[in-house]
Amino acid sequence: MGVDVGGTKVAVGLVDAQGKILTSLRKPTVATGDAAAGLASVTGAIDALFAANPQARETIRGIGICAPGPLDPNTGVVINPPNLKCWRDFPLGDEISRRYRVPVKVDNDANAAALAEYLWGAGRGYKNVFYGAIGTGIGTGIILNGRIHHGRTGAAAEGGHVTIDYHGPVCGCGKRGCIEILAAGPAIARRARAKLSEQPARESALRKLSGGNIEATTSEMVGQADADGDPVAKEILLETIDLLAVWFGNIVDLLEPEVIIIGGGVAAMLSPFFAELRERLAAQCLNSRNQEIPLLHAHYGAESGIAGGAALCNSFG
Amino acid sequence: MGVDVGGTKVAVGLVDAQGKILTSLRKPTVATGDAAAGLASVTGAIDALFAANPQARETIRGIGICAPGPLDPNTGVVINPPNLKCWRDFPLGDEISRRYRVPVKVDNDANAAALAEYLWGAGRGYKNVFYGAIGTGIGTGIILNGRIHHGRTGAAAEGGHVTIDYHGPVCGCGKRGCIEILAAGPAIARRARAKLSEQPARESALRKLSGGNIEATTSEMVGQADADGDPVAKEILLETIDLLAVWFGNIVDLLEPEVIIIGGGVAAMLSPFFAELRERLAAQCLNSRNQEIPLLHAHYGAESGIAGGAALCNSFG
Repeated sequence: MGVDVGGTKVAVGLVDAQGKILTSLRKPTVATGDAAAGLASVTGAIDALFAANPQARETIRGIGICAPGPLDPNTGVVINPPNLKCWRDFPLGDEISRRYRVPVKVDNDANAAALAEYLWGAGRGYKNVFYGAIGTGIGTGIILNGRIHHGRTGAAAEGGHVTIDYHGPVCGCGKRGCIEILAAGPAIARRARAKLSEQPARESALRKLSGGNIEATTSEMVGQADADGDPVAKEILLETIDLLAVWFGNIVDLLEPEVIIIGGGVAAMLSPFFAELRERLAAQCLNSRNQEIPLLHAHYGAESGIAGGAALCNSFG
Repeated sequence: MGVDVGGTKVAVGLVDAQGKILTSLRKPTVATGDAAAGLASVTGAIDALFAANPQARETIRGIGICAPGPLDPNTGVVINPPNLKCWRDFPLGDEISRRYRVPVKVDNDANAAALAEYLWGAGRGYKNVFYGAIGTGIGTGIILNGRIHHGRTGAAAEGGHVTIDYHGPVCGCGKRGCIEILAAGPAIARRARAKLSEQPARESALRKLSGGNIEATTSEMVGQADADGDPVAKEILLETIDLLAVWFGNIVDLLEPEVIIIGGGVAAMLSPFFAELRERLAAQCLNSRNQEIPLLHAHYGAESGIAGGAALCNSFG
């Protein structure tokens, strides 16, 4: 069973040994009350899944949970997630394990999604995988020799906060010019608004999509406008590709993964430009042979949290 | 036996199982002739070491060689090193192994030095080590679970070419704003020359050391002037510390090593500012607990290549 605990919803699903999501359901998260209320959101979703699939009580190997960080993947303790304030040093893994009498693992969503891609998705056949989920933020997971690279405290693979412009804008994390503040969804929207403001006379599908209200422009509109052939949107996405090439160049020079997998909500609108990304990456990594590194779409989309949670159960007997 | 093949000299030494360098010698490298002439430089140095230590023929476990990259550590083939043009796809490992009838490993200098620090030096007791040698360039080595992280082609851990300012100056590697072009010895000298030119009226020990010829200012003079209490030199070194903090922040956010070890010729002049580096690193990594990561001086100095070469033999029976 994979459980994806987010700030607004809990998604749970049953996943088979080949990574196929057999069934799933979603419930809202109650994150405003105390720790017990937060826990009840999770157990409510799990209970509902068991109620609909009673045989699962006998057949599951365990429960794997993606939870918001920071957390300790070794102990299953959720430390102090900014978007789930109900929990502070909360032993989520132990609580779920005691209640359902099964082994439980807890990890962050990008680590777990990386593991799911490695086991069942775009990363099959590779031992060293770099996974980046580009959406509202940028989450990353690193698989080395078939295992999640957790690092000293369990919080490694925060690749979204790798700085590529130390003079750049300040990110929510406090650092300047992280790839997240430069290239995630909000940065794409910000760049779109700036371009529309600076070039008021330039006609574009993007301007039309925003309904004349530049401030209402979203990254989704940029993706839509590009799909409609809008040159302004294309410019914005190619600028984003340039930044991602610098970022991936850093990661390749440090780690030389065997494959780079791109997921997250923004990945789809970037996909028309993967050839450009590959080409620009070649100029951004020291070893020219590394332009061969496959750059692949994630297999799992919106259900990456469920698949990731289930992937965490892979180490259970 | 550890062998350190550089563009101008070959250093060889005998190292005991505790990492102590028992004896060593140096010979000039003949890098201008053909592949055989380059090989003769290496075998000449090894022969001289054996001649002076005949018992070593019986007692050594193997020969480990640090050679200039790019190279393939799996096959011991040196590909096309810019500063040893005599070799192109040259099977250095096989040649040495056949000649001396012992197991041989070849790796790049920073990887090997990182392994020596892990086994015998400042990294003892840690499993995951990041090693950075700051000198004319910046070389890095990554030890994960007690092994060198080689990556897909064997050329991982090129941390000196991690970009922290993609608008920045172009490095020899072709990328912009790598930490090497911003913070290695030549960058320190460049910054010193700029500061002395911009502030002609400002008195400083650094200006005196350069003998009035600003263009002759070196990074060594900056270190010397700082040791003499010169405020201009201190400013330059603190600016370098700022850049290194951004760089280490990237590495910590991605990898969370258990220890960071700093070696190389420039490390000594930076050492008065390790407390500042530690403090600034705290603001440059996402997980505030990572300010605890020990920041240590390398144990091996100028002999890191010999120790590194010998460390490569550790896996031989």
